Amino acid sequence: MAHIPLPDGLPGIRGPMAFRPETAKPLNELAEALLRSDNSLSRGDRELIATYVSYLNDCFFCQNAHGGLAQHYMQCDISFIDDVKRDFNSSEIPGKLKALLAIAGSVQRSGKAVTVDQVEKARSLGATDREIHDTVLIAAAFCMFNRYVDGLGTWAPADRDFYVKRAAQRAEEGYANYDPYH
Amino acid sequence: MAHIPLPDGLPGIRGPMAFRPETAKPLNELAEALLRSDNSLSRGDRELIATYVSYLNDCFFCQNAHGGLAQHYMQCDISFIDDVKRDFNSSEIPGKLKALLAIAGSVQRSGKAVTVDQVEKARSLGATDREIHDTVLIAAAFCMFNRYVDGLGTWAPADRDFYVKRAAQRAEEGYANYDPYH
Repeated sequence: MAHIPLPDGLPGIRGPMAFRPETAKPLNELAEALLRSDNSLSRGDRELIATYVSYLNDCFFCQNAHGGLAQHYMQCDISFIDDVKRDFNSSEIPGKLKALLAIAGSVQRSGKAVTVDQVEKARSLGATDREIHDTVLIAAAFCMFNRYVDGLGTWAPADRDFYVKRAAQRAEEGYANYDPYH
Repeated sequence: MAHIPLPDGLPGIRGPMAFRPETAKPLNELAEALLRSDNSLSRGDRELIATYVSYLNDCFFCQNAHGGLAQHYMQCDISFIDDVKRDFNSSEIPGKLKALLAIAGSVQRSGKAVTVDQVEKARSLGATDREIHDTVLIAAAFCMFNRYVDGLGTWAPADRDFYVKRAAQRAEEGYANYDPYH
């Protein structure tokens, strides 16, 4: 049971967002700017960074909701996303994305854990300053979203297919005008 | 030196916010909604929660910028804020605020670290559902802001008086229309 009374039947972040629309608005605008707006990183790459950080933070709802979106955008099987979460270095993703996931993994532990070597490696593999910036902020933002979802003890569907099936609709709706009741 | 080139002379979060105004906007609107908008928790209480989490995350810029604001709103000496950071249970703050800081401290470690007992204690000392919600989200948000500031290797003035002296101006300006160049 959640730590505070939340509207019935709304899993994960949707309950707290319905409870407090004043804070939901900037949270959703931040997600839109980071994960969907024009960017040299694809939406799939950005959702994958969000998924990986949510996996490291052990947030079941976020890693599955954003993992579902990543597989939708990347047009792959969810097992591929699982492989990346478990060991991205051995997975079939480009070197630049591996270097950005390494930075995201450091941010998940602490901002201070990001090293000059990690940033130089990402840059040597083609990452731009804005891509490095956005990777750090996506990782930092999911350290917030994950704590928000789990810190209020929210409920999440255990069936992982739920998230995969919902992904196409979520991709179409976007975040900016997100309706937690929908 | 910061991990990406940032405008000169802008400490802490101001550099990244000037670098990427598209994400600065929702970040500042979130800070405004959480830390300044109408709330049964005072602005001082909310800045203190932000300061405590930034202290736990060892983010020098954030703990001093928000610690300066907390002392400004609470009209106390900065040494009082330092006492709260080091050991809030022994400090002269109300029981409800101690219980909320305990929840914030759990969120800083992990959302899952928040316990039913912590929430029940806060409620027994008068905390409302919305105050519990806002405490969790303020703590979660500063796990983001701290990682954003340190994950990009930003610079911060070492003189702690800088932040205390700036606090009155920052309190007046607010967050919503924050100009990182000012």
